[in-house]
Amino acid sequence: MDKLTLHEDPRSGNCYKIRLAAALLGLPLERVEYDILKGETRTPGFLAGVNANGRIPVLQIGERFLPESNAACWYLANGSALVPGDRFAQADMLRWMFFEQYNHEPNVATLRFWLHYVGRANLTEGQEAQLEAKWLAGCAALRLMDEHLADADWFVGDAITLADIALFAYTHVAEEGGAFHLADFPHVQRWLDRVRAVPGFVPMQG
Amino acid sequence: MDKLTLHEDPRSGNCYKIRLAAALLGLPLERVEYDILKGETRTPGFLAGVNANGRIPVLQIGERFLPESNAACWYLANGSALVPGDRFAQADMLRWMFFEQYNHEPNVATLRFWLHYVGRANLTEGQEAQLEAKWLAGCAALRLMDEHLADADWFVGDAITLADIALFAYTHVAEEGGAFHLADFPHVQRWLDRVRAVPGFVPMQG
Repeated sequence: MDKLTLHEDPRSGNCYKIRLAAALLGLPLERVEYDILKGETRTPGFLAGVNANGRIPVLQIGERFLPESNAACWYLANGSALVPGDRFAQADMLRWMFFEQYNHEPNVATLRFWLHYVGRANLTEGQEAQLEAKWLAGCAALRLMDEHLADADWFVGDAITLADIALFAYTHVAEEGGAFHLADFPHVQRWLDRVRAVPGFVPMQG
Repeated sequence: MDKLTLHEDPRSGNCYKIRLAAALLGLPLERVEYDILKGETRTPGFLAGVNANGRIPVLQIGERFLPESNAACWYLANGSALVPGDRFAQADMLRWMFFEQYNHEPNVATLRFWLHYVGRANLTEGQEAQLEAKWLAGCAALRLMDEHLADADWFVGDAITLADIALFAYTHVAEEGGAFHLADFPHVQRWLDRVRAVPGFVPMQG
């Protein structure tokens, strides 16, 4: 495999997904850090050379660049035990990964970013107006996960897959910023501990 | 393959993706229609029997249910020419599909839904407050697509893949509601015609 370089901000759960997948797979990953709060992913150099969408993470594979956290995880894990081989199970894993990007991240991660990093006093009027809707949608996403995990140890099948990695990233730090309380979702809490106990697990900070 | 049934609202681009993928693959699909404007996907029966997330589309495969449009497309097309076999190209295709759900659909599709179906006069204050941000983000998504298509006929490789199907669905109706003008994105317009010319293509309404 070509040399792997992760362009990231270590506080980003989306970036952490890729580090966690790489760690579980035993793949070495070089890291280049950017500070998104300082706009370091919106510079002309970043837009032209790394990602025209101005976002991290980007997984660099040799001279090629792959944006989108869940696509980068797929690149790393394709063919491994983190991706089920069964046709339905594989699609069902992607289903939870699309759910993560559509229903979970824009609510759970965005509220953490706004309240924990940006700070409520610094929010724009438009952001302030969205707080309640994002809180409700984030709670709905966590509740859906909790209901699924009432009957299952993992999101798909009987072992960890990329679906668990994708959903773990922002769920385990959902309380940062104060919007969400994981005690309301006990099956999610037990699943978080299950993920932390997987051999090769690495924490977000480190 | 088990019998395939699509639970859908025919006005939804997310549902259309699955019909278009099935048509290009020559797979028969039964259709069960719901009216999302009448809340038909939020009934206790739908939540318990089809999708606890209260959303369409859901692809039913025999007795199993698969939500999330792009995951359903993956299920249908896995192993076909609509999914590149090359490791990087396959991940790059998923990259555009995650981009579609994160950067494109919540802006381009949501503004179409709000302005074309719900009607501006019926929007909540919170929705009204998001119009400008969603318009800017939708334009940014279309611009990124346009820049990519300046040098390429398709999003990945030299033929249509699921990335094109996913992005076609809401782009080709982006003008409905009046928020977006496709004449501003000439490479996108030529690519829309390229998709329409693919053998087996089916239109959204029909």
